[in-house]
Amino acid sequence: MENFIFQNPTKIIFGKGSETKVGEEIVRYGKKILLHYGGGSIKKVGLYEKILQSLKDAGIEYVELGGVQPNPRLSLVNEGIKICREKNIQFILAVGGGSVIDSSKAIAMGVPYRGNVWDFFTGKTELKEALPVGTILTIPAAGSEASTASVITNEDGWYKRGFNSEVIYPKFSILNPELAFTLPKYQAACGGSDIMAHVMERYFTNTLHVELMDRLCESTLKTMIHNIPLVLERPENYDAWAEFMWSGTVAHNNLLNTGRIGDWGSHDIEHELSAAYDIAHGAGLAVIFPAWMKYVYQHDIIRFAQYAVRVWGVDYSYWDPEQTALEGIRRLENFYHSIGLATTLDGLGIHDDRLAEMADKATNSDENKVGNFVRLGRSDVLNIYNLAL
Amino acid sequence: MENFIFQNPTKIIFGKGSETKVGEEIVRYGKKILLHYGGGSIKKVGLYEKILQSLKDAGIEYVELGGVQPNPRLSLVNEGIKICREKNIQFILAVGGGSVIDSSKAIAMGVPYRGNVWDFFTGKTELKEALPVGTILTIPAAGSEASTASVITNEDGWYKRGFNSEVIYPKFSILNPELAFTLPKYQAACGGSDIMAHVMERYFTNTLHVELMDRLCESTLKTMIHNIPLVLERPENYDAWAEFMWSGTVAHNNLLNTGRIGDWGSHDIEHELSAAYDIAHGAGLAVIFPAWMKYVYQHDIIRFAQYAVRVWGVDYSYWDPEQTALEGIRRLENFYHSIGLATTLDGLGIHDDRLAEMADKATNSDENKVGNFVRLGRSDVLNIYNLAL
Repeated sequence: MENFIFQNPTKIIFGKGSETKVGEEIVRYGKKILLHYGGGSIKKVGLYEKILQSLKDAGIEYVELGGVQPNPRLSLVNEGIKICREKNIQFILAVGGGSVIDSSKAIAMGVPYRGNVWDFFTGKTELKEALPVGTILTIPAAGSEASTASVITNEDGWYKRGFNSEVIYPKFSILNPELAFTLPKYQAACGGSDIMAHVMERYFTNTLHVELMDRLCESTLKTMIHNIPLVLERPENYDAWAEFMWSGTVAHNNLLNTGRIGDWGSHDIEHELSAAYDIAHGAGLAVIFPAWMKYVYQHDIIRFAQYAVRVWGVDYSYWDPEQTALEGIRRLENFYHSIGLATTLDGLGIHDDRLAEMADKATNSDENKVGNFVRLGRSDVLNIYNLAL
Repeated sequence: MENFIFQNPTKIIFGKGSETKVGEEIVRYGKKILLHYGGGSIKKVGLYEKILQSLKDAGIEYVELGGVQPNPRLSLVNEGIKICREKNIQFILAVGGGSVIDSSKAIAMGVPYRGNVWDFFTGKTELKEALPVGTILTIPAAGSEASTASVITNEDGWYKRGFNSEVIYPKFSILNPELAFTLPKYQAACGGSDIMAHVMERYFTNTLHVELMDRLCESTLKTMIHNIPLVLERPENYDAWAEFMWSGTVAHNNLLNTGRIGDWGSHDIEHELSAAYDIAHGAGLAVIFPAWMKYVYQHDIIRFAQYAVRVWGVDYSYWDPEQTALEGIRRLENFYHSIGLATTLDGLGIHDDRLAEMADKATNSDENKVGNFVRLGRSDVLNIYNLAL
């Protein structure tokens, strides 16, 4: 096990009706907020009115900024920063999924910074302070509600880049599984894929003696494998959504990577895909993860065999663990199919014309590598895209 | 799943040599501290000198109070409160196991309170503020390093009582598995038993649809079942102690009870045992837990069968789940024996002469019940003590 520091201060307020508490939570941080959201679906489901009532009861003034798109854009972040400065905003409330939360975090980072907020995403500068952010989660997927991460797409060149800092842990996140009832099935499946990917990125590690976290990862994956089909079958299944939603937070709140170094190559490889084609991140991951696995599994057959046995219930082939490892990858692919996700680029309508461009962007050169389990250069990334065709 | 609020702010600093960081962590809270510890074993292993050096480097003054005993005493807590007030102490550093940490938390609670600190433990008053506490953990067992709990024994009548409040989450806890290398084997086994009990108290619940936390509990138990024997076999096994120590924190940091109501009857029943006979808490739990299980398992045979299958690898008896449930309890007893713990009161040298007195203290009357999975009155508690003989 590696030495580590773990502290996740985000307050999770979980359960039916919990969104009505938003005003009393915010008021500890300020009385003038930015209310940030996406395409307006929050208005259709009655959530918007409940939030406004709670803000009013707590004496909180708000400025609205809707319009966050999937793969949230830098231009809207910059608009949010401008509004916050002009209106002396003290707190940002994100209502939505990972895109809205990531956009809110980026705005929060940019407000006190005198330069261009994109500097944080290119590693040009370090984050020292940010406005406080709180969230009401409507799409369990990205885990941004209790994470250090923000992923933003810069339309100038279509670069999608992630940034991590403990400064941007949300102060609180409100998780009401009922808010996910109206999610389209495809979006639910993509969210499930994203959550599973967050666990698998942590699972595939070269760190030895990481038994507790291995087992917690396997437990979280098994819970997702059980509950994704249940919510697809019956979207108003509160109990299944509760497992799904809480798993999504646990998957990405940094507990599961304590004492180990995760991989994250598949995320980097997928980011170029969703930046280039504007597809859902979870849909891209369902394509990239199996291809990545096939490309790297020989690096640690036993770890892949353990994954197959413990997560997918594959019988262990004592005399041929490689067969077990490969069967685990097949089961993952079969599972993606069963929840309506494609596992090839072709299935997403993507062909081979921009693979080299994406491999360039993901790595810049063969020296600039992605992933930790196996370090992958430009040619490896291109091979993985080709495997995924 | 039940609605819940979860927030654990304790900063965990885990790994080899992490105790040298103690000064820089404390200095955020103050420069005048109480250094609280137990019987002086910290001086034998060189830990004491490292701490003093780190305090000196950070410009921190300290006042010492050693002498915390297992089942920490109210009289020493009161002495600590007096010292803190006289010397204007700003921070308490606990160096030791659960007893030292619980004693430190109680001192921290008592300093700003004008009444008797025991009032908190009898429920007479509510905790509003406390001095900040940090810990260097030397005995993985109680989980107090990242918990809301303090358990104190009042020598006036030998009452052992627990108190819980989010106000007493430690600010930081330093966990270096190397510090456990010198633990006597019996104490290591008792610590392991305590950790497993913390998980099992949460596991046995009447709340339905708690799959993720069920699985995380099972994972934590399996990790302990694997690693306790490893540290007993080779006390300098860093990797096994790392799993053991981090499991001990995860077991009790309130994650594993999110969305469910735990039992805690066995803890209440055991507390009277260690108060009356001054035995190790973990040793008492190894006696009480199997007796409790035999007394209550019929309340939910399927949950006990799931525990047997998933934690102990028992084959599920599809036509007779009760056999599976009972086999799970037998495996737990066998495991306790294998790590050198008795599973009967007789094995602890305790006979039937004070059972009624302990049942009285645990419950006062048949109306004052303990436990949630099954509510147990005085006669039930007495039956469990008798089953444990």
